[in-house]
Amino acid sequence: MTTLSGLSAFSITPADEHGRVDTDALRGLLRRLTSAGVHSIGLLGSTGSFPYLTRAERRRAVETAVAEVGGRTPILVGIGALRTDDAVLLAQDAKAAGADAGLLAPVSYTPLTDDEVFAHFATIAQASNLPLCVYNNPGTTHFTFSTDLVARLSRVPGVVAVKNPAPAADAVAAHLRALRTKARAGFSLGYSVDVNATEAMLAGADAWYSVAGGLFPEACLGIVRAVTSGNADEARRRDATMKPLWELFARFSGLRVVYAAANLLGICRCNPPRPILPLSGAVLQEITAVLVKLDLK
Amino acid sequence: MTTLSGLSAFSITPADEHGRVDTDALRGLLRRLTSAGVHSIGLLGSTGSFPYLTRAERRRAVETAVAEVGGRTPILVGIGALRTDDAVLLAQDAKAAGADAGLLAPVSYTPLTDDEVFAHFATIAQASNLPLCVYNNPGTTHFTFSTDLVARLSRVPGVVAVKNPAPAADAVAAHLRALRTKARAGFSLGYSVDVNATEAMLAGADAWYSVAGGLFPEACLGIVRAVTSGNADEARRRDATMKPLWELFARFSGLRVVYAAANLLGICRCNPPRPILPLSGAVLQEITAVLVKLDLK
Repeated sequence: MTTLSGLSAFSITPADEHGRVDTDALRGLLRRLTSAGVHSIGLLGSTGSFPYLTRAERRRAVETAVAEVGGRTPILVGIGALRTDDAVLLAQDAKAAGADAGLLAPVSYTPLTDDEVFAHFATIAQASNLPLCVYNNPGTTHFTFSTDLVARLSRVPGVVAVKNPAPAADAVAAHLRALRTKARAGFSLGYSVDVNATEAMLAGADAWYSVAGGLFPEACLGIVRAVTSGNADEARRRDATMKPLWELFARFSGLRVVYAAANLLGICRCNPPRPILPLSGAVLQEITAVLVKLDLK
Repeated sequence: MTTLSGLSAFSITPADEHGRVDTDALRGLLRRLTSAGVHSIGLLGSTGSFPYLTRAERRRAVETAVAEVGGRTPILVGIGALRTDDAVLLAQDAKAAGADAGLLAPVSYTPLTDDEVFAHFATIAQASNLPLCVYNNPGTTHFTFSTDLVARLSRVPGVVAVKNPAPAADAVAAHLRALRTKARAGFSLGYSVDVNATEAMLAGADAWYSVAGGLFPEACLGIVRAVTSGNADEARRRDATMKPLWELFARFSGLRVVYAAANLLGICRCNPPRPILPLSGAVLQEITAVLVKLDLK
């Protein structure tokens, strides 16, 4: 297995209302992941609120994670920033702190062109020496990678993987085939969007970048192990049991639901960064009911 | 005329490759606007690259502008930030430095709900005492304000105006009517998107928030004066002469074109922040040809 294969579990980054990371709470969350045996840890991803934290706090989070994980599990760190020079510094920080790879989202305000994104990635890869995963998340970055651009980036030294949002079950095999044909051989092809991830893995994806896996690693590892052992029926059966959680993610976003679940289960006491508001009232009762029904704890 | 009516001219913010603002160049750009007699100055708008600059540099830009303008023209300052607490600080900085109003874009990474955006605006208005203009720019912020949300915000103390992207000519009158009906009386209704702004002004909008006006104030003031004097034909004739510029904006974005034009005309030597790349080659020749044809200098 290369660094970026299997279940990559993305944690929230507990922080106070001023954006100061709660390193004890973060350690607790990461301990759940290493204990369960996830294949990599996604730190400071979208679920980890990376754009809402300062460079200093992001560095503290990486140092905390590296110390807690102790080399047992590869750590993938979100290094995205609006400015190219800021992203270079974040990548250098992550590398210096001991991260195994960087997850680079082309965060945008002014919409970017393909050439701008290509130059952004090439500059950061070259200046940091940190292996990079291309983070395609149009719902947050508002930039969409074409297959051709991913293929171009797969040939930039240091760019090792892509994290795409998984298309629906009937489209994922073709999506994967097109990427395999065009990208450099050995380039890791992985998917996010938990609801569609099981079919992506069954179609031959290398990695599942999972929001649910960051809080409930056992449930997600169960699916990945079923896929790996060739038991598609079992993988689909396990995925089907998770459906009520996928529906909550669709309605309120994975980030908001995972924060609420972490609080409801007493795993940590923390809220997402304002302006994002914590879920409340009847929604929390719904989430509690799903956690009980799925025996998630 | 209230503060936010007529032509609001949005300047680029010249800065070096590290994001250090060139205050001399900024003064030169603002002098063009005060000399021409624009009705307000838009500093640190989207064209002014506000999200790409640090708090310290944004403060320097506001202090420079306030000193240069010397109270002759109201200054509207972009105070948007991903985090609510950061936007509060930016609004307080702008107020302390002497800005007349704040332009608040709901910059997002995680997509925001209406209630989150409402709370964000109410918090910043209350904590800063700076009159706020709601900045609706879905193309960059990825949040779309409904008419109902604008109407709700128009009743928050301190929220005084909205800057909407102007719909096409056949839709703007209805858009404006719906807003006038629902928003608080006296709430300023203005539009961006230069290509559609003349029709918006002819339909009765209070303000035109203009990218072109930040570099070519005379040409845009000519249109606004024709509207104000009831000469719709003359306004439309002047707008039609600008069509080659509007087409360049549509193809390359107003920001990229205005940077190129400022350099081509020797007004300043500066590039947009990376990852945004300066226009080059044949495109610069096209822009030069348009500047010559329209006699813009």
